Amino acid sequence: MGKHEVEYRAPEGLPVIEIVREFDAPRELVYRAHVDPDLLVRWLGPSRLTMKVERHDIERGGGYAYTHIDTDGTEYKFWGAVHDAREPELITQTFGFEGAGDAASLERLVLDELDGGRTRLTITSVVFDVETRDAMLRSGMKEGVDQGYAQLDDVLAGGPGRSAS
Amino acid sequence: MGKHEVEYRAPEGLPVIEIVREFDAPRELVYRAHVDPDLLVRWLGPSRLTMKVERHDIERGGGYAYTHIDTDGTEYKFWGAVHDAREPELITQTFGFEGAGDAASLERLVLDELDGGRTRLTITSVVFDVETRDAMLRSGMKEGVDQGYAQLDDVLAGGPGRSAS
Repeated sequence: MGKHEVEYRAPEGLPVIEIVREFDAPRELVYRAHVDPDLLVRWLGPSRLTMKVERHDIERGGGYAYTHIDTDGTEYKFWGAVHDAREPELITQTFGFEGAGDAASLERLVLDELDGGRTRLTITSVVFDVETRDAMLRSGMKEGVDQGYAQLDDVLAGGPGRSAS
Repeated sequence: MGKHEVEYRAPEGLPVIEIVREFDAPRELVYRAHVDPDLLVRWLGPSRLTMKVERHDIERGGGYAYTHIDTDGTEYKFWGAVHDAREPELITQTFGFEGAGDAASLERLVLDELDGGRTRLTITSVVFDVETRDAMLRSGMKEGVDQGYAQLDDVLAGGPGRSAS
């Protein structure tokens, strides 16, 4: 893979998705872009959406809630609870989407330091069954992740992120 | 299985444990025994332990933390974040044990009404890999679950629970 492409792994028969992506920035900064809501709104999700953060307490026992707003005004609401967070290397949290019923994921974000002040991000996401995992992969998730991390590249380089698109 | 025995399911090749147990009480009461910390300390976990609750906010975006204390004073600390809770039927939360490193589970508790004012409890628990699932099954988890639910039977019948043992 190119160093700025997202690698997706969907292990056969397991309800797991793994996402790997590298960034040209130190992990302290990549971590901060995940916990600071003013940075987060500039990169998370597909580029056509805007984002409002209702809650963003990224610490053990905390939680988050945000809304993505489509070009026609449609709102997509997401929320989760934070199992653990350890700066600048680990966030373990749940993920839910209003409209997906009681489906829930557990996500573990790990940031590893690479040479040259670069960072490898690995997200391992697990759900209760393989069918739900496969539906997530078909849902357009990849488009949002790919575009979001391209926006994060821009934010990490000091650019505006989403509003640049 | 006998109606008061715990049924354990560990599907081959999946990082999932399912626990099924029936109770002679309506689900409103079984749910309350999970969310009211004064009831919870009377039944959760092995009978030889006592229990202190540090936090117990069982609602969407909430969290919990408690300590089990062994007969020799050793403390076992557990915590989690609450993804969702819908009285009297659903709680989805994470589960962690201090001393298990960064391991975490996502647990979904479902309470179904049965005839005669009885309740079926189903917990589906998922972790990031099958090895961790298998280690949980070998860890003495069953002893704590079996004894805990026997104590819950007593609490639901109006007895003292743990202190009865």
